[in-house]
Amino acid sequence: MSVPRLSLAPPAPFSDRVVDAVERKRSQLVVGLDPVVELLPVELRGEATANRAAAARAVERFCKGIVDAVAPYVVAVKPQAAFFEALGSDGWRALETVALYAREAGLLVIADGKRCDIGSTARAYAAAFLEPRPDAPALADALTVSPYLGRDSVDPFLAACRRDGAGLFLLVRTSNAGAAELQDAVLSDGRPLWHHVAGLVHVWGEELVGEQGLSSVGAVVGATVPRIVGEARREMPRAIILLPGVGAQGASAGDVARAFTSGPASALVNASRSVIYAYRDAPTDDWRAAAGAEAARLAASVWTAAGW
Amino acid sequence: MSVPRLSLAPPAPFSDRVVDAVERKRSQLVVGLDPVVELLPVELRGEATANRAAAARAVERFCKGIVDAVAPYVVAVKPQAAFFEALGSDGWRALETVALYAREAGLLVIADGKRCDIGSTARAYAAAFLEPRPDAPALADALTVSPYLGRDSVDPFLAACRRDGAGLFLLVRTSNAGAAELQDAVLSDGRPLWHHVAGLVHVWGEELVGEQGLSSVGAVVGATVPRIVGEARREMPRAIILLPGVGAQGASAGDVARAFTSGPASALVNASRSVIYAYRDAPTDDWRAAAGAEAARLAASVWTAAGW
Repeated sequence: MSVPRLSLAPPAPFSDRVVDAVERKRSQLVVGLDPVVELLPVELRGEATANRAAAARAVERFCKGIVDAVAPYVVAVKPQAAFFEALGSDGWRALETVALYAREAGLLVIADGKRCDIGSTARAYAAAFLEPRPDAPALADALTVSPYLGRDSVDPFLAACRRDGAGLFLLVRTSNAGAAELQDAVLSDGRPLWHHVAGLVHVWGEELVGEQGLSSVGAVVGATVPRIVGEARREMPRAIILLPGVGAQGASAGDVARAFTSGPASALVNASRSVIYAYRDAPTDDWRAAAGAEAARLAASVWTAAGW
Repeated sequence: MSVPRLSLAPPAPFSDRVVDAVERKRSQLVVGLDPVVELLPVELRGEATANRAAAARAVERFCKGIVDAVAPYVVAVKPQAAFFEALGSDGWRALETVALYAREAGLLVIADGKRCDIGSTARAYAAAFLEPRPDAPALADALTVSPYLGRDSVDPFLAACRRDGAGLFLLVRTSNAGAAELQDAVLSDGRPLWHHVAGLVHVWGEELVGEQGLSSVGAVVGATVPRIVGEARREMPRAIILLPGVGAQGASAGDVARAFTSGPASALVNASRSVIYAYRDAPTDDWRAAAGAEAARLAASVWTAAGW
């Protein structure tokens, strides 16, 4: 006897899920998972040096511990694909396990992969990161994407947003020093290139505005230059802006205030190393407690700076 | 009794290894490995549909068969990371196995990942793709990289070129229709953005020119617009230009001739679907033979068009 397969309703748009999480937790904090074996706590580092499989197990234990510690204070985790790929297929398995663990803890997962490729290949990346399978959820709720190849390279990700309630964060102006070399190149109309990209992101996101007025097509804008944050907000009034650069990269919570003028969930602040490796500067060996305390402190500080 | 560890000489620069392979094989052809389960030959597709592990095994068998078939006619294979990642950690393991198999068959491996990120993360990507480990060679000889984040995001890859004899192919002007949206944006000096990027690639590659006069810092330039190929050649006289777009994307061997004016190994021509799925348009069920025949035909046609 065959059982009719249930047709589940598609998940709510990513942007609405972000709004819900931000309001429920009174937090706009995202913690980046950048696991580096050499920086792991001693109790994990010992087992990690034997080989890649052991390193991946240690990374998985570490990331799960961080998820447990920060879950009450953050809306999402942002696993950085590179640090898992550096451990090969064992690392990729750890990424899958950690992402599922974070979703089961009620967190959104933003995969930081900065993927980009032509249409047929972008479809495969969308499948890898954003599309659920018959027997498993998608790896992540959202993915960072580079816009350098233009609209047709972004289309397969937009399709995943429409169909699966996924989200995107397009690179608009990154937080590193070298960003200026390309992203600030001055166009014939006097604008920097990144303004042009911000305009594209705004247009691409218009069809994906959720019930709460924000688009599931967001943007990555480095928090290290407050003037740029304000300009980006004006260019993309409906985008959820993901702000890296707070903490280890030098930006403060106050630097990001201008990103929030479209609402309390209109920006997410990412901190990675300053939270997950907080134990290295803390008067405690309890790395979980140190990460949790730093996440709580930073979340409250961003919430206050956002002014909502 | 401890045995002193042998200090092996670093491998020859990537660009010199390309020159050697091109001259030895009289071929500038690269075959892209873009495995899609739905396009696999029937004998493999059957076993591939059960789950991701089975799909990854089928993909691995297919790619190994393609490597065997094309090895006499090509200098490199270019596995496209996305199609392996779409199968999760099982797919990543297949990528590792296929890459090692291709290197043992005497082929160069160009991982097509189009990675980009800030310095600390780019270091992890360099480790994932380009750096040998104590017990294993690097996954690939070269990696495609997006330049959108500027010089400091490329530095870790340049370090791998210097230290490990690796190579890079920076995205300069891609072959897709949407490329124009960003890469052709006109700068205040009247040049398109991609000219500016080509200039950066030329500068970044100057310190990595090998004995044969070509740099290990190459460039991706779509073959679909011959005028652009010629301009790119002039902007980057020492870059090995990787030309996608021949075959399924519509460019012909003749379209790429202008890329070769810096020598017979100064450009590599990539064909993916038109070679690996040649059996679908061939009067044979032997998918290996069809791929080998199409690779031989295309390699000879490019060699003639290159005019060396």
